[in-house]
Amino acid sequence: MKLIVDANIPAAERCFGEFGTLTRLPGREIGAEHVKDADALIVRSITQVNDTLLGESPVRFVGTCTIGTDHIDHAALARRNIAFASAPGCNAEAVVDYVLSSLLTLAERDGWSLLARTVGVVGAGNVGSRLLARLQALGVKTLACDPPRAEAQEKSEQDFASLDELIERCDVLCLHTPLVTEGPHATYQLLDAQRISELAPGTVLLNAGRGDCIDEMALRGRLAGKGDISAVLDVWENEPGIDASLRDLVALATPHIAGHSLDGKLRGTWMIQQALAKHCGQEAPEAFADICPSPALASLHLQKTLPVEDALRLCMRAVYDVRRDHDSLERQVHQQGVRKGFDTCRADYPLRREFATLTVKLSGSAVELEVPLKAAGFGVQRAE
Amino acid sequence: MKLIVDANIPAAERCFGEFGTLTRLPGREIGAEHVKDADALIVRSITQVNDTLLGESPVRFVGTCTIGTDHIDHAALARRNIAFASAPGCNAEAVVDYVLSSLLTLAERDGWSLLARTVGVVGAGNVGSRLLARLQALGVKTLACDPPRAEAQEKSEQDFASLDELIERCDVLCLHTPLVTEGPHATYQLLDAQRISELAPGTVLLNAGRGDCIDEMALRGRLAGKGDISAVLDVWENEPGIDASLRDLVALATPHIAGHSLDGKLRGTWMIQQALAKHCGQEAPEAFADICPSPALASLHLQKTLPVEDALRLCMRAVYDVRRDHDSLERQVHQQGVRKGFDTCRADYPLRREFATLTVKLSGSAVELEVPLKAAGFGVQRAE
Ligand SMILES: NC(=O)c1ccc[n+]([C@@H]2O[C@H](COP(=O)([O-])OP(=O)(O)OC[C@H]3O[C@@H](n4cnc5c(N)ncnc54)[C@H](O)[C@@H]3O)[C@@H](O)[C@H]2O)c1
Ligand SMILES: NC(=O)c1ccc[n+]([C@@H]2O[C@H](COP(=O)([O-])OP(=O)(O)OC[C@H]3O[C@@H](n4cnc5c(N)ncnc54)[C@H](O)[C@@H]3O)[C@@H](O)[C@H]2O)c1
Repeated sequence: MKLIVDANIPAAERCFGEFGTLTRLPGREIGAEHVKDADALIVRSITQVNDTLLGESPVRFVGTCTIGTDHIDHAALARRNIAFASAPGCNAEAVVDYVLSSLLTLAERDGWSLLARTVGVVGAGNVGSRLLARLQALGVKTLACDPPRAEAQEKSEQDFASLDELIERCDVLCLHTPLVTEGPHATYQLLDAQRISELAPGTVLLNAGRGDCIDEMALRGRLAGKGDISAVLDVWENEPGIDASLRDLVALATPHIAGHSLDGKLRGTWMIQQALAKHCGQEAPEAFADICPSPALASLHLQKTLPVEDALRLCMRAVYDVRRDHDSLERQVHQQGVRKGFDTCRADYPLRREFATLTVKLSGSAVELEVPLKAAGFGVQRAE
Repeated sequence: MKLIVDANIPAAERCFGEFGTLTRLPGREIGAEHVKDADALIVRSITQVNDTLLGESPVRFVGTCTIGTDHIDHAALARRNIAFASAPGCNAEAVVDYVLSSLLTLAERDGWSLLARTVGVVGAGNVGSRLLARLQALGVKTLACDPPRAEAQEKSEQDFASLDELIERCDVLCLHTPLVTEGPHATYQLLDAQRISELAPGTVLLNAGRGDCIDEMALRGRLAGKGDISAVLDVWENEPGIDASLRDLVALATPHIAGHSLDGKLRGTWMIQQALAKHCGQEAPEAFADICPSPALASLHLQKTLPVEDALRLCMRAVYDVRRDHDSLERQVHQQGVRKGFDTCRADYPLRREFATLTVKLSGSAVELEVPLKAAGFGVQRAE
């Protein structure tokens, strides 16, 4: 089998080498001349996969190691009967790490307790449903809003509420919706001026879905005016040319990196490896843990108990501290301006691991932290 | 032996119980009527120890579990031939933890490397000399200024430089001087308007000595005007009624808590226990480690190497993160105003441990971090 593989896909040799001969090329340079005698094509979002690229090639499998598929012409694949796989949810755990890290940081800074709050999750897909699961395991009261899922399912499976109910009842609102511009469940400016004006004082509004889901002008107005709510924004209208004055007003402002873990990237590769193996009628070649390198920080050992949220902050910051990303965006924007600063942060993003890579060893009175630490996503072990 | 002991001295029963009968009283309430048949008196800074208190009492030993002795009338003790001990340097390691935590936080935030900088230490006493030792062990270039020590010693012992030399040659300036209002080495406004104007752009100025050693008006002018230097202030003119507009301009602003570790307080008790034992002709009763409770975080394990300063930040923040104290002062000042906010932060100060209480276990390529981690003050162990 001959495979054309984007040169920037991590662990590609390791994951696809066993299927045949790999030709690795920069994503933007992959052309019809490379694909014309290939059997499989593995890309990231910068390669347009369409009739022009595929031509008369013998390609039977296309995989993209990303959650988005805007670069894929699904009709062109269907016409050729080409099998297709993407990696939905590959970095969803990283986004949940980001959300927990952000909320617990604001809680410490502003003197409140996350465990005592009600958190509303808008968009209960790959990211939102995992966030709900971790929050619920932690004992946080949650409400979920996802009209498309609510309509698609049996009523009893899970309770959903309306966005207006979330706005009324929640202290924290987390947006994890895709951009949908049309139809009954459009998400474009889902949080419009009206809804932003309805947020109760003290509300924390977090967006790690798509920037366009919030009316940024209205948000900026509320933050600059009354200044009685807080915002955490990872996604923005007009990236990378984001609104500098809004960035100044946001408690935690990051450059669309919520999902940027090494684990997330490798999980993308691994999911396509699994799909290709299935396509070839092979057994699943290896477990995800096998391709994931061990982290620098193996474990930490707590031998006495701590207040739960302090223990969570200690463990999560040892793995990922969102303030680093906020500070780095602030610095780069001041040094290079908004567009370049935003892009530099993303291009130079440091290696980041997920909470699950840390083992927390517990002994003595710290064993009572087992449930919340597991709930937050850490590995937990009893120690002597 | 009958001992009068301030009720707020931690581990007092444990440390002084073996010498006789303890009477514990709030420091402000200790009066001549309590002391009149006591053999030893153990206080903190709020008890004035003078002729009025001592009267005709049989007291033969006075100890204060603090570094300051302004509350002690040394002449009154000398007249009665009473042995005296204080606890100089008991919390000096905590101050050094604070300084390293602050500098490495600013380095990350502003994108520079501490290991590549030259650090000037003004006042090389208990705090300053320990800071110099840790910085030098880390390989940081240092300069020290301490005219009283320079005059008192043989030229060759240690090199000292003048304050103006430090200002000219250092990227970071750390003040650890006491307040001296008179004489050739007065420290009142040691950093006056002239010297503040001479600081090179990019300089970091840190003060954890005494607030009055800096001309705050001049510093505020430079920060609000050119804004081309950064300040870290733990001590202030006029505490607790500090200058709110200066606080706003300071990169890290904390309420005189640099030395507030549990270890520092216990070391104060322990040093007086050692002195009392010596006074009674006894062997030193126990090692400091024996009276120090084990910390909640016992250890962390690094199995792969990291950039040195990232490893230092990871370990130090797991023990102490100065941003918590900065954020808490900011919040309290906004909620309660400057005076009350400052005092609330100090009164409610959370339990803090010193770097030395953390054992960092190293394996794999992380063993190359042994030298810098030890230099920074952590316990280090090889792990399999
Ligand atoms: N910030 C980052 O780094 C990062 C990382 C991963 C994903 N994302 C973004 O987060 C969003 C969600 O990602 P995902 O993987 O969970 O997607 P998903 O498709 O799995 O889930 C999206 C969910 O939103 C729901 N939804 C659609 N319209 C809605 C509406 N009007 N109101 C409420 N819910 C609605 C859908 O029914 C679906 O359940 C996407 O836009 C994705 O691009 C961002
Ligand atoms: N922020 C805190 O929480 C905290 C904690 C501990 C100590 N302190 C303060 O830090 C200061 C230093 O404490 P220490 O225990 O190291 O005191 P120390 O007496 O051991 O050392 C002070 C040093 O400053 C030197 N010095 C005096 N005048 C000087 C001058 N004009 N220029 C340069 N050096 C001069 C002295 O020679 C001495 O070596 C004190 O004021 C103390 O109150 C603050």
